[in-house]
Amino acid sequence: MKPIIRFPVIDRRVLLSSLAMLPLLSASLRSTAAVAQAQRDPLPSWNEGATKTSILDFVARVTKEGGPEFVPPEERIATFDNDGTLWCEQPLQAQLFLLIDRVKEMSARDPAIGARQPFKALIEQDYKVIFGLGKQALLELVFATHSGITDEQFNRAAYEWLQTARHPTFGRLFRRCTYRPQVELLAFLRENGFKSYIVSGGGVDFIRAFAEEAYGIPCERVIGSSTKLRCDVKDHVFSLTKLPELNCFNDGEAKPRNIGLHIGRRPLLAFGNSDGDLSMLRYVKSGPGARLSLLIHHDDAQREVAYDREFALSPLVEALDRSAEYGITVVSMKRDWKVVFE
Amino acid sequence: MKPIIRFPVIDRRVLLSSLAMLPLLSASLRSTAAVAQAQRDPLPSWNEGATKTSILDFVARVTKEGGPEFVPPEERIATFDNDGTLWCEQPLQAQLFLLIDRVKEMSARDPAIGARQPFKALIEQDYKVIFGLGKQALLELVFATHSGITDEQFNRAAYEWLQTARHPTFGRLFRRCTYRPQVELLAFLRENGFKSYIVSGGGVDFIRAFAEEAYGIPCERVIGSSTKLRCDVKDHVFSLTKLPELNCFNDGEAKPRNIGLHIGRRPLLAFGNSDGDLSMLRYVKSGPGARLSLLIHHDDAQREVAYDREFALSPLVEALDRSAEYGITVVSMKRDWKVVFE
Repeated sequence: MKPIIRFPVIDRRVLLSSLAMLPLLSASLRSTAAVAQAQRDPLPSWNEGATKTSILDFVARVTKEGGPEFVPPEERIATFDNDGTLWCEQPLQAQLFLLIDRVKEMSARDPAIGARQPFKALIEQDYKVIFGLGKQALLELVFATHSGITDEQFNRAAYEWLQTARHPTFGRLFRRCTYRPQVELLAFLRENGFKSYIVSGGGVDFIRAFAEEAYGIPCERVIGSSTKLRCDVKDHVFSLTKLPELNCFNDGEAKPRNIGLHIGRRPLLAFGNSDGDLSMLRYVKSGPGARLSLLIHHDDAQREVAYDREFALSPLVEALDRSAEYGITVVSMKRDWKVVFE
Repeated sequence: MKPIIRFPVIDRRVLLSSLAMLPLLSASLRSTAAVAQAQRDPLPSWNEGATKTSILDFVARVTKEGGPEFVPPEERIATFDNDGTLWCEQPLQAQLFLLIDRVKEMSARDPAIGARQPFKALIEQDYKVIFGLGKQALLELVFATHSGITDEQFNRAAYEWLQTARHPTFGRLFRRCTYRPQVELLAFLRENGFKSYIVSGGGVDFIRAFAEEAYGIPCERVIGSSTKLRCDVKDHVFSLTKLPELNCFNDGEAKPRNIGLHIGRRPLLAFGNSDGDLSMLRYVKSGPGARLSLLIHHDDAQREVAYDREFALSPLVEALDRSAEYGITVVSMKRDWKVVFE
């Protein structure tokens, strides 16, 4: 019998069955791969310790074929918050700097805009006023100042902004403010058959503009806050116009609700960093079988910013104080991460 | 150098690069695979002719590396309506038979329910009354009679119902009323790197109960009509309760809007069978580059049911009458399908 490999192949089971059809090679290849896998540290930017071990152990248990906690690949879902979990959210979430740039642009054309609140506070980066507005109101401002264009136009504009926009204190591009240990974790989960989603309070269109390049997460695996869309037709061409009206603020209990709507399956693993993620972390952790919920604690003033309960736009209080009771694994940035940024 | 195959592998590019690391074998394997691919008819249940050719040509063009219409795998999205497109929707959509069974059950416990309209008409399968209600009102009845339970409980109940529920005239299980040519098309698209979604007016939870087994479409790639969900906590266990309130009726313009919300990328290919799919078909067809929109016309009274404009629950009028103008490829069940069911 001639060996046949069907490709393109995107299904792991097809690959394995194809390998099984290479009788002379498959056994030696498999053991070679197993050795290579064992020798390579899949999370080199994580320090050795209980946290890293809990992640490696969890993945080993749910992927061990024939093991008591084995979960088939199609059920291996992981959900990650974005701001503060996959990349830096200090001093403000990156999308708010896009808002600030947009308001500056509008104000340059019409100075009356810049003289009015809350636009004045945004232009002056008056954090006291900005924090007073709260996360949802700021998000609605983002949506209002980026409405009347199509989702495709917004995607391009956000992508272009991200090519040059820099973090105000770190000096690096915003899109380079991703956490290296987390990018490694996403790759490790992917190699182990997990489908990882972003489930963020940030605007879904904004995250889609960089998630694929930054994290390897395709746009259809991004769940976020959203505006209502209008279906328009012009000269036979259909498009989706972003309206200034909020469709969903994806924070708190909306996170598990949107996981139910978009994914339809309780994830095995969730990762967050604030009380806005707590419902998602508890929803995931309280499912049957092996589950892992992780919470990053920003306790590293030297390499990033040390903050938790006092960050008005996304405080961390209950999730930290009751983590043991809720079975949430706290990740200390200072203790558990060898490096922070890429 | 020892050959290394990393696995589990779910990414075609990883597979191809792994194959490239088998220097002695890769060339011969690749040519064997290419020959096998060329010799095998990927759509054996489709009759030869212009329709089949248009599908094969389209897929060849968008997957030809270096070709003028090449689309990278991550952008290869296809969206399919379900009722009447992937499986039979006559004499009523399958989910309405679940509703009828549910109403019978409720009526057995409380005969007063069965004496009232519209429940009486459902129990008696009085199609005139049922059709008069319209698709959305019927769907809201489905949601109302299956609320107060969690999404996970509904999924199990629907799955169990589908194990034994039979089509009233064909006699076969509903889950065997899928169209074989379409199951082949889904497999063909998958082999060519496409991610196929269901975008249906039917209830998302109901479709998720069989889409993976029937079509190879995982639950996270099902977009449908939905109820609102409530996030509940009891003894530290979080769950999502289905409320009797409609969240979204995914029909007409809601289809492209929900594609924007859930996928965030305009599909390359769409397939529908009624005017409820027309916005999706035109949204897809009017994107830049190569796009294919297909419409199944149920013109086969012998093997299925011949119907179009008169089907009150999901009429086909404009999409058929103006298909040429809109660039929609009409698939004749009678002419284009060698077999209909599995």
